[in-house]
Amino acid sequence: MAKAAKTAIEPIREENYPEWYQQVIKAAEMAENSAVRGCMVIKPWGYALWENIRDGLDGMFKETGHVNAYFPLFIPLSFLEKEAAHVDGFAKECAVVTHHRLQAGPDGKLVPAGELEEPLVVRPTSETIIGATYAKWVQSYRDLPILINQWANVVRWEMRTRMFLRTTEFLWQEGHTAHETSQEAWEETLRMLEVYKTFAETYMAMPVLTGEKTPGERFPGAVNTFCIEAMMQDRKALQAGTSHFLGQNFAKASEIQFQSREGTLEHAWTTSWGVSTRLIGGMIMTHADDNGMIMPPRLAPSHVVILPIARTPEDEATVLAHCDQIAAQLRTVQYHGRPLNVVVDRRDMNAGEKGWSWIKKGIPVILEIGPRDIAAGTVFVFRRDRTRQDRYGQPAAEFISTAAGLLDDIQKTLFDRALALRAAYTRDIDDWDQFVAFFTPVNKEQPEMHGGFAMSHWCDGADCEKKVNEDLSVTIRCIPLDRGAKGQPGACVVCGKPSTGRVVFAKAY
Amino acid sequence: MAKAAKTAIEPIREENYPEWYQQVIKAAEMAENSAVRGCMVIKPWGYALWENIRDGLDGMFKETGHVNAYFPLFIPLSFLEKEAAHVDGFAKECAVVTHHRLQAGPDGKLVPAGELEEPLVVRPTSETIIGATYAKWVQSYRDLPILINQWANVVRWEMRTRMFLRTTEFLWQEGHTAHETSQEAWEETLRMLEVYKTFAETYMAMPVLTGEKTPGERFPGAVNTFCIEAMMQDRKALQAGTSHFLGQNFAKASEIQFQSREGTLEHAWTTSWGVSTRLIGGMIMTHADDNGMIMPPRLAPSHVVILPIARTPEDEATVLAHCDQIAAQLRTVQYHGRPLNVVVDRRDMNAGEKGWSWIKKGIPVILEIGPRDIAAGTVFVFRRDRTRQDRYGQPAAEFISTAAGLLDDIQKTLFDRALALRAAYTRDIDDWDQFVAFFTPVNKEQPEMHGGFAMSHWCDGADCEKKVNEDLSVTIRCIPLDRGAKGQPGACVVCGKPSTGRVVFAKAY
Repeated sequence: MAKAAKTAIEPIREENYPEWYQQVIKAAEMAENSAVRGCMVIKPWGYALWENIRDGLDGMFKETGHVNAYFPLFIPLSFLEKEAAHVDGFAKECAVVTHHRLQAGPDGKLVPAGELEEPLVVRPTSETIIGATYAKWVQSYRDLPILINQWANVVRWEMRTRMFLRTTEFLWQEGHTAHETSQEAWEETLRMLEVYKTFAETYMAMPVLTGEKTPGERFPGAVNTFCIEAMMQDRKALQAGTSHFLGQNFAKASEIQFQSREGTLEHAWTTSWGVSTRLIGGMIMTHADDNGMIMPPRLAPSHVVILPIARTPEDEATVLAHCDQIAAQLRTVQYHGRPLNVVVDRRDMNAGEKGWSWIKKGIPVILEIGPRDIAAGTVFVFRRDRTRQDRYGQPAAEFISTAAGLLDDIQKTLFDRALALRAAYTRDIDDWDQFVAFFTPVNKEQPEMHGGFAMSHWCDGADCEKKVNEDLSVTIRCIPLDRGAKGQPGACVVCGKPSTGRVVFAKAY
Repeated sequence: MAKAAKTAIEPIREENYPEWYQQVIKAAEMAENSAVRGCMVIKPWGYALWENIRDGLDGMFKETGHVNAYFPLFIPLSFLEKEAAHVDGFAKECAVVTHHRLQAGPDGKLVPAGELEEPLVVRPTSETIIGATYAKWVQSYRDLPILINQWANVVRWEMRTRMFLRTTEFLWQEGHTAHETSQEAWEETLRMLEVYKTFAETYMAMPVLTGEKTPGERFPGAVNTFCIEAMMQDRKALQAGTSHFLGQNFAKASEIQFQSREGTLEHAWTTSWGVSTRLIGGMIMTHADDNGMIMPPRLAPSHVVILPIARTPEDEATVLAHCDQIAAQLRTVQYHGRPLNVVVDRRDMNAGEKGWSWIKKGIPVILEIGPRDIAAGTVFVFRRDRTRQDRYGQPAAEFISTAAGLLDDIQKTLFDRALALRAAYTRDIDDWDQFVAFFTPVNKEQPEMHGGFAMSHWCDGADCEKKVNEDLSVTIRCIPLDRGAKGQPGACVVCGKPSTGRVVFAKAY
């Protein structure tokens, strides 16, 4: 199969999607594997994206009444054991600190020494250590609610890792709240789910479905787990964020008790919710193309790069000065409350290579400015969401005055494109044979490529859930919140028993 | 000894300074000890202060050309061993991960399992793991300089911990740069020292001395270490930040090599520099008083709290609405590039208790507004840097239009006060007996309270440095950068041998 045109990323998506993903990360200089198994180095361009994600979400958390705090990295083993389902869920993937110094061994090499009385686990999540703290803070209903979020690193010893999607150490935020009533905790759980959906769609330009996880897919120790799920370009699902209603499970494990308004002693109702650097993997697999990353403008580390095009050494100073002037004007433009981030790329390198480096990084807009543009008062504009053939010249003043609108248009294009992809590969399926065919690879060379999301009926039976997983590596991604409300009962696609409404089946990361 | 007046913090500074420090942290709700040895919980009011420190410094790092990135939490033991002095310096205080899961032991209790082939050290600092990465990134002089900073948690297994000042886990930033020439790395080292000084004095209102550490006090593996040192209210010194010229030591250990302009293969020249949550301890011991914390306005989590004073339930709605209106107007005021952060405290609690809670937290300005103020169009103003007796009424409009200036005045007062303290307790001392007397406790009940900073001559001898430390628990805090330039030779205060200039001697945290 001959390729239509040379692309910056090899292989292209059609050829080998997983390898294309790794190559995009490399070409965009977002991250790389480190010498430590499963841990990545997040490079400046990737980390700046994470900082923007953090700032965007943090603003939404604060608007919904939350404050930030910081809790210890280490969790005593005995704390983790307090909630039975919780420790079962994490015991297999814990980094365990057993010693607190190093000393020379018999052969002169350093070995661990100073064994701890009780091993410490590097937090895989912080329900138990935060719960122990809340137990001290809460005495009366007047001390509730507690609405706290933490930005932190966590460690889960995953066997198979993939940059951003599943790494041993990752960065995340974890909200932990405690409430007086079940109702309040329930409302909080769904409020934060909605915050995640809004963030994913508005900032990340990544459409998501929201719903509840099946009992088998719940967070260890949770009563209910809710999630946002997105479709990647290979039609697989990515769980991008979760919000847990923990009931009184962790409050009982950590003894978070309060004197109620009636004078009785009650356990608090708690929630937790989190998103991680996995979101970056989701953005790559939603927006990047065969030439590299495409950054949604709302989160892009930089919005515009200006490439000075000087044909002769004499031109250079004039062109650079002009570019700096355009950059300065662009930096006065406000884009969603912040000034545009503009780079003038002065690197001494081949112009083609320079331009491609920014295409691969996915900056939303590339401006080329040369002597003729200066004379004509124009700039040459390349929108990263379109092809190089679509580049156009425009009066510089007009570009500046419409830059914010242009970025919003790019943002909308990316969202609409992702939404269209999801719509194209989502089908109502009521028949088992069709269901099997839908999840059968469509491309021999890419065994993972398949139909997409199947909206099918399910009897709520764990056996049927297990069968689709074992036969087809398909899971129920979520049970829509309004399932049943639409009055669409049907028959389980697996066993034919009655179902109250469709659920989302997909292969997933 | 009868106390002059009741204070919010007991004991007061004069009675027991170390205990006063702990009580301020507690009363201001900034942090507390956790169940994990030496690890603290940073509570929302303390963490918001850290976020402001982070944002302020981050802006200065970016202005000086740095970008952020993120490197792994874990360091393979073999990496740490690459630099001999470095591993010697940290081996005694390393948290070591030896296992990657937990499983039920013979008695059913969980025990560590899945032993790692090579133990991993939880980073005490990241020179070695970052060095290994830079070695991959650097091939040619064109790849230099690398100017990267990381915001992260680090762990040092300290035997004696104290909140913020010395904790097992702490938050910090660590800059790691690599350069083509010694000169460039040297300039970077001193540039970042200057950034720290500017930040400490401008944002933290904490005057600092800058200088070089003696060879014995250098960072393990550094060629030169520079520091900022501040005087606390008990006249002890606090090392608040360090900047290290690492020469080619770590470049050789990590094999960071590049092809030079001349075509030869050279080792890069590197630097590292860091400040941590210790800065918060420094701010407390610089500004807090016997009624609690005093936040410098440039870093205060909130600038103004409004206390609605309603005498009757009927007043309440009117007073609250009026307070909200004043708050809204105040939030339109820009203070150093950001809108004022204003709280209306609606908590249903005793007015006195409410007011004291904010005094203890150290918010710069407390406004009281009641029905009579509303009628008169005034507010009642309490500046936290003055006493309650100094409170005054003022037309609300005037308060709002001068609020930014008022905060700047408070900031200046705090700085001037700290500077005056340092001046009062810094003395040129040329005589050994006077030197001994200066560092002898001035107060029997507080064995730590002593003279302050002695500016004395030193022969550069390690023996004299050691004697001072062993006899008096005094260390050389820094050798002023301009030592000798002032042409003030003298005789070593310990041994009488020639000295090129005075150095700073003090007891230290």
